[in-house]
Parts: sequence; structure tokens; C-alpha cells
Amino acid sequence: MTGQTVAILGLGLIGGSLGLALKRSASPPVVVGWDRDAATLALAHRSGAVDYAAGDLTEAVANAELVVAAVPVLAVREIFAAIAAALPRHAVVTDVASTKVAACGWAAELLPAAFVGGHPMAGSERSGIANARADLFAGATYCLTPEATTPPSAVTRVTTLVEAVAARPHLLSPAAHDRAVAAVSHLPFLLSTALVDVTARSPEWELFRSVAATGFRDVSRLASGDPRMHRDICLTNAAEIRPWLIETARELEALAAELDDEAALQRRFEIAKAIRDALIERDGEPPI
Amino acid sequence: MTGQTVAILGLGLIGGSLGLALKRSASPPVVVGWDRDAATLALAHRSGAVDYAAGDLTEAVANAELVVAAVPVLAVREIFAAIAAALPRHAVVTDVASTKVAACGWAAELLPAAFVGGHPMAGSERSGIANARADLFAGATYCLTPEATTPPSAVTRVTTLVEAVAARPHLLSPAAHDRAVAAVSHLPFLLSTALVDVTARSPEWELFRSVAATGFRDVSRLASGDPRMHRDICLTNAAEIRPWLIETARELEALAAELDDEAALQRRFEIAKAIRDALIERDGEPPI
Repeated sequence: MTGQTVAILGLGLIGGSLGLALKRSASPPVVVGWDRDAATLALAHRSGAVDYAAGDLTEAVANAELVVAAVPVLAVREIFAAIAAALPRHAVVTDVASTKVAACGWAAELLPAAFVGGHPMAGSERSGIANARADLFAGATYCLTPEATTPPSAVTRVTTLVEAVAARPHLLSPAAHDRAVAAVSHLPFLLSTALVDVTARSPEWELFRSVAATGFRDVSRLASGDPRMHRDICLTNAAEIRPWLIETARELEALAAELDDEAALQRRFEIAKAIRDALIERDGEPPI
Repeated sequence: MTGQTVAILGLGLIGGSLGLALKRSASPPVVVGWDRDAATLALAHRSGAVDYAAGDLTEAVANAELVVAAVPVLAVREIFAAIAAALPRHAVVTDVASTKVAACGWAAELLPAAFVGGHPMAGSERSGIANARADLFAGATYCLTPEATTPPSAVTRVTTLVEAVAARPHLLSPAAHDRAVAAVSHLPFLLSTALVDVTARSPEWELFRSVAATGFRDVSRLASGDPRMHRDICLTNAAEIRPWLIETARELEALAAELDDEAALQRRFEIAKAIRDALIERDGEPPI
């Protein structure tokens, strides 16, 4: 991407890691960064995630071939509105938000430039520029959600970015993306949250935590994620998430009715293990 | 423990790791091993987890000061029945099963020797002697569940074993143990199982798995655990587990009704994050 200018708007875990990864790639572009928080912007500059710290959004996007909105879902709309007038006509815009139907709708409504929704399937429950890492995306699936009307050249430009940070581009529609992440990303963080909520409100929580071990740690891990991100995901993908919550509640009730049934339990645990083992050890792809 | 003889009955992940850890401890005892599977027993002997491979249970316990039944919950009862006649009167028996009320009841019913229930809060979704590790228990909480009538000398002998494998003994009653693990061990593996079950039976599973990432991997990890162990835990702790499944089902329904409520969602995710962060970073104790 040598010779190109990439503007990264928002320098948290994802934006900061994108900057670090781009600057260490084989053909690093010029990276201009912006963040609403001056200390974050300064830290991103010092850490080498961005070459230039822009004073405002207009300055950040003025010379950009590629603009990455790396902010929480609901802030994407504000960013699009704020940059629309200053965007170069030839620029391509992408984002990294966890839900894609909403972001694509805002892009169509507000942006005068081409837009390709993006969502790197990488992250951490530790947010912020302080946790940014150049290798955060290495080997990760990176969803791109062009629509029928998206120019192929725009898709190519964003794909180049994805490959520069060593991620694997995965093209699907915004609606398919939101259905899939509701099941395998949003339902998991809601189960983590529910696990912490129901156990910690017990009067016996001190006893419980005295024996909590790696199982609890891992299943609850996503409850340590960014509350605002989780909130925004729920608000923008409620229609896809709600049926999973209801179906899982029914499943837990079915399990509760089956706790004395040796054969049914054995079958249930064998099936879940076989599916999960196959997922983790899928052939020809890096393990998740 | 130099000069003592420890018999380990069952040489899977836990029994095998106990043998390896004991043999590498500062004052290693003599370790006699038994397993119903000859290949497992031979592998344990070759790997150095046991000094002697016993031909049967009677031979295994004949000279033991300490007997460890390291088998799945429901097999504990069979082991107790099989060793009762051959146990030296001065021997102390312990087990490593995931539920303790049942094991303590079987010991009272069947064993002529002192019994102290044990449960190391360590393990892996990868079972079997091939995955055994000398450091599996290092720093882990190791529950011991003596009863009012248990001789203090028996508790001391088992505590010495726990400390020899570098774990931290944690004394509590069998009933308190079973209440605690229902919340922070059994509910988590049932949530992992439910997550895999509900998502994988969708006609869109192939789409879902194409975007599954570390979040799904971690929350579903326990679904890869040993089906028989999970089954036995449910069968022997159903009364403690059932209310958690019902309460979590109610919680998921409450969440489903709240997916459009920005303030309620923010509060919910902030509370869960604060609790979980505090659990992981508790002062003065190793992180879980």
C-alpha cells in the first residue's frame, strides 16, 4: 500500500492495532489518525500506530484513499455524518463495527463515497490503545460486506488492507453477517454476562468464587468486554439476537428436565463434544 | 512423602498428572498405579507417573498409606466396593471426583478406612493419560471435604499430598462444595453445551462457523470435555444444578426483553464487567 494514505478514525484496540499492523506490513501506507480523546491520539502517535495525528476529522480524511471508521457501532453514524463533506470523491470508506446492516444503511444515507463494511473477527476483552498489538489480526477471519451496488474496485481496495494486516478476507452480505454473529459472537457474550449475573447475585457468591477455576474464567471471559460495545451490538442487532436468547432459555429448561436421564445426558454431551471438536480442528484452516 | 506408598486407582488426566507431580516433588513417595485399561497402565508406567503397575485393585492398595480413587464419579462407588476388603486398616482414602456429597456417602457406606473427599479445581477438556502433566495442579485450588467425624490425621495426610503437587488446599463441607461447583463449574459446562447445541442445529451452521472466532471458542470450550464426566456430574448433583439452569433461562428471557433499552443494557454490561474483572484480578491470590 506504499504511496497510499489511510485515515484511521478512532484509535482504540482495533484502530490502534490496524495502525501498528499497517506500519509493519511489507508496503506500509501513510497512516493518518484521529481520536476524540487527545491522550489516546498522542499515545497512538508515540507508539508508531499513526504517522500523523490529525487535529480534526476534516483534516484526517482530506488526503485519504481509504478511511477506516474504527469506533463503536453507534458512533459510526456520527463519524459518517461528520466526514461526509470533507471526503475526497475517490476515497473508499470502511468500518470495523460488530454489526453490519446498520452501518451499511448509514453509509448509503450519509456518504458520498464508496463504502465496504468490515468486521475483523479478532479482539480482546481488554480494550483501548494500551492493548493494541500489531499481530491482533494475524490469521483472523475479516468479514467484508459489500452490496450488489458496491464498485469492485472499492472491494479490492479494502481487501488489500485486510491482507496487509495478515487477516483472511471473508465476503458475505450484511444481513448474513448479522445473522451469523448473532449466533456465534453475540449469544456467547450474552451467555458470559448471564453466567456472571446469576452467580454473583447469590448470597453465597463468596463461597462460589473461592472455587472458581479455569472453566468459569473462560466461559465468563466475554463479560469483561467493553460495556458500550456490547450495548451497541444489542441495540443494532436485537432482531437477530432475541430468538437465540429465547431458544437457549428453552434449551436450558430442557436440560433441567433431563438431569436424571443417564442415556439422554450421555448422548447430549457426546454430540456437543463431537461438533465442538470438529469446529476447533477443521481441516485446512487455522484453528480458531 | 518419602517412604510412604500412594496408590492411584485410575490413570487418566487427573490420576496420571498426580503421579507425575508426586514423582517430581521434593520428597517423592512410592507410587503404585492401577487402571482397568492395560494400555493406559503401561503408558503411565513408561512415562514415570507410577513406579509399579499393579495387576489388580487388591495388589494396588495392599501396602498403601494413601489411596487415591481417580475415576469418574459413578465409578468411585465401584472402586470403593472393590477395595474395601483389601484396604490396610491404617490407610486413608481420597478421591478426585467432581461432586462430593455422593462420594462421601459411598465412603461411609463401604470403606473400613478413613476418607477425605478431594476435588482439584484443575483439568482440561483434553482427557486421558496422554494429556497428563506434572504441573497440572501448580497453584490450583484443591478442595478437601472432611466431615465432622473425619480424624484430623487423615486430613493431614491428604493435605500433604495436595501440597506435594503444589496445589492450595481449600477445606469445605461436601454440601458447600457441591453448591459452589454447581454454580461456577457445572453451570458453565452446561452453558457451553447449550451454546454448541442451539447454534449447530441451525440450517445456517455452515455460515455461522465460517465467522466463529475466539469468543465462541472460549465460551464453548467446556463442551469438548469428557461426556461421561459431565453426565456423572449431572446425575450426582442434579438437585443443585437444576435451579441454576432455570434461573439462567429466566435471565436470558429478561435480556431478550431488554434488547432495546439502552440504559438497562449499559448498566447490565457494566455490572457484569466489574464483577468479572474483580474476580480475575483478586488481590493476594493467583489469578484464575
